[in-house]
Amino acid sequence: MSSFATVLNQIRTKSPLVHNITNYVVMNNTANALLAVGASPVMAHAIEEVEDIVTISSSLVINMGTLSEKWVESMLLAAEQAKKTNTPFVFDPVGVGASTYRTEVAQMIMKAATPNVIRGNASEIMALAKLTNSTKGVDSTMDTQDAIEGATLLAKKYNNTVIISGETDFIITGDTVSKIENGNPMMAKITGMGCTATAMVGACLGVEENAHLAATAAMAIMGVAGDMANEKSAGPGSFQMNFYDSLYHITPDMLASKVKTNV
Amino acid sequence: MSSFATVLNQIRTKSPLVHNITNYVVMNNTANALLAVGASPVMAHAIEEVEDIVTISSSLVINMGTLSEKWVESMLLAAEQAKKTNTPFVFDPVGVGASTYRTEVAQMIMKAATPNVIRGNASEIMALAKLTNSTKGVDSTMDTQDAIEGATLLAKKYNNTVIISGETDFIITGDTVSKIENGNPMMAKITGMGCTATAMVGACLGVEENAHLAATAAMAIMGVAGDMANEKSAGPGSFQMNFYDSLYHITPDMLASKVKTNV
Amino acid sequence: MSSFATVLNQIRTKSPLVHNITNYVVMNNTANALLAVGASPVMAHAIEEVEDIVTISSSLVINMGTLSEKWVESMLLAAEQAKKTNTPFVFDPVGVGASTYRTEVAQMIMKAATPNVIRGNASEIMALAKLTNSTKGVDSTMDTQDAIEGATLLAKKYNNTVIISGETDFIITGDTVSKIENGNPMMAKITGMGCTATAMVGACLGVEENAHLAATAAMAIMGVAGDMANEKSAGPGSFQMNFYDSLYHITPDMLASKVKTNV
Repeated sequence: MSSFATVLNQIRTKSPLVHNITNYVVMNNTANALLAVGASPVMAHAIEEVEDIVTISSSLVINMGTLSEKWVESMLLAAEQAKKTNTPFVFDPVGVGASTYRTEVAQMIMKAATPNVIRGNASEIMALAKLTNSTKGVDSTMDTQDAIEGATLLAKKYNNTVIISGETDFIITGDTVSKIENGNPMMAKITGMGCTATAMVGACLGVEENAHLAATAAMAIMGVAGDMANEKSAGPGSFQMNFYDSLYHITPDMLASKVKTNV
Repeated sequence: MSSFATVLNQIRTKSPLVHNITNYVVMNNTANALLAVGASPVMAHAIEEVEDIVTISSSLVINMGTLSEKWVESMLLAAEQAKKTNTPFVFDPVGVGASTYRTEVAQMIMKAATPNVIRGNASEIMALAKLTNSTKGVDSTMDTQDAIEGATLLAKKYNNTVIISGETDFIITGDTVSKIENGNPMMAKITGMGCTATAMVGACLGVEENAHLAATAAMAIMGVAGDMANEKSAGPGSFQMNFYDSLYHITPDMLASKVKTNV
Repeated sequence: MSSFATVLNQIRTKSPLVHNITNYVVMNNTANALLAVGASPVMAHAIEEVEDIVTISSSLVINMGTLSEKWVESMLLAAEQAKKTNTPFVFDPVGVGASTYRTEVAQMIMKAATPNVIRGNASEIMALAKLTNSTKGVDSTMDTQDAIEGATLLAKKYNNTVIISGETDFIITGDTVSKIENGNPMMAKITGMGCTATAMVGACLGVEENAHLAATAAMAIMGVAGDMANEKSAGPGSFQMNFYDSLYHITPDMLASKVKTNV
């Protein structure tokens, strides 16, 4: 079995509990994607319980899509607890650079605990790397290739794995650059596909210690399920529906045979 | 017309206003399910208005899936108001037992007003009954049958109706145990199907005073609509879509003829 | 090209950034509808960043579906910033009249900045016009025609455009009453279709200065996409899915040829 296939197989057999502190827009999507692929999602953000939930979870996903003061407190507590309990942690710095506040919050979270994986689009990763101020909303405004250098700096600084999502996904650890080339333009027409990718990294980190492998497997699962969905879809509405069906039906063998990668 | 059929018919003719204080993950799903079946959902949680909304509603649904301090205040105010106005009230103790906080909140809510109906999976009902600490996230980790004894204790203590959801749903009031056996494994692969069941109990309580009948009818509607959806679905994405279509199309006659029950 | 077609064309070419401060129930729907039609949604409500986000956006949408204290603060800050930056602003007074609080909040928001467009159902528009107290939840309980007089008073008082949604949509500015008659009963069986219409007004206001034209084009896009979706749908679940596909596929020519209007 290929290494990606093994990760998917592990998700199916272990059903990792993935703790998501994520934005309001995508909570339903990411929960459904995690269930469809075989993981077990939990969404909890109360300051009073967030540490308890981190402790019983296989991994932690923090996504800063919709921020507010209490949620930031909760994200920081969760990150600190993940550090204490060695719970693998993936961070999605949604819209970082679009406001001063987002940039500050992203820095606070990464100070509370170094994420094992950071996933963003090119402009978000550049914003983290350069703390530039050019993000246009939550969409990518730069060429993905341009962000690879920034991602590499970031990955070396934090000694972790950085994912740049786009038509081609780049997964970067040290000087290793893995690519997943199954990206589908329809995925950009549906809200929360990037957030779903981050949640998928959470599922993979819940069963696979090697963060680079977990991150690459997650992007492979997203890409292949996207291709499977696209074959049957007439637009973004049907794509989203078929995407869940595809996550449910994708087998380790299908993953191994359909992924387009340099790995 | 069978008693379940009568309840469904009443929902269609009266379109009860169902006040939901529910979690972020499922708000959209539950609102759509209520609309599809013929009820009228309202989602409102502001401390400043929650009592006004309870007062004009046919029933109150409190679901503690995603908690935080202000929401708990709002749930307590709503429960107290429901008690004052004799508004039927169904409680969904999502994830109770997964954190100390959840257990405390569940107890506070049930102290503010005795729910006419409590709906949970086996582990949640057990957690309420025993205040054990073994819930794994929001999924059920115990055999449903094992929870019947706990549910009966609970139903007798509160003099109300307790539902244990699962492949077979058990609806328990005093020593009466009704069963709905239309449960479909696909329902566990979609987030919020349990929460939707609770909202459906809210719709039925809005038109039917007998809590045991309302609870049983709600689980029957969920189960039969689930069977109808499953016949046409390729996976969890298409199941969810077809489930709304089925709730819209299910007739009292179809409900009466397709339900699998000991009633 | 007809004027509606030009507006749609502009959305596709400019991809306006639409800032939504909206309710939890519909965030996902409205983001997906905006993406499908070609706009770029951003959802942000933190007091710390809401002014920054207004400043970089093409338009502001405020929807008061699910209120709470912090969100109201954020809505007021955003409205004031929109006034300063001349950012076009559309307001959706969801459920106004259902509680005293909603009525007060609606008045505060409209005092902070006059909306360029207000969109509601007949009872909401009447509640704003008369500050009556007869709203039943978030559904319309009055005949749309009865609200036209109220809407005209409102539009003249605020010197803006008022939309009454229903089977026929009325778009009112001064003494001009435009109609879109593509309304489909299925749209009332899906949560958030009104909220989506408001977001669509946001997209149109982001590319078209004439508020009356922008509002009318938005309702035309909603109505024609609704008709396209309805032809292929078996119920509300499939309608919602097909609606996104239709928003994605609708061309300026299709819009111009299929719209039923007095314009």
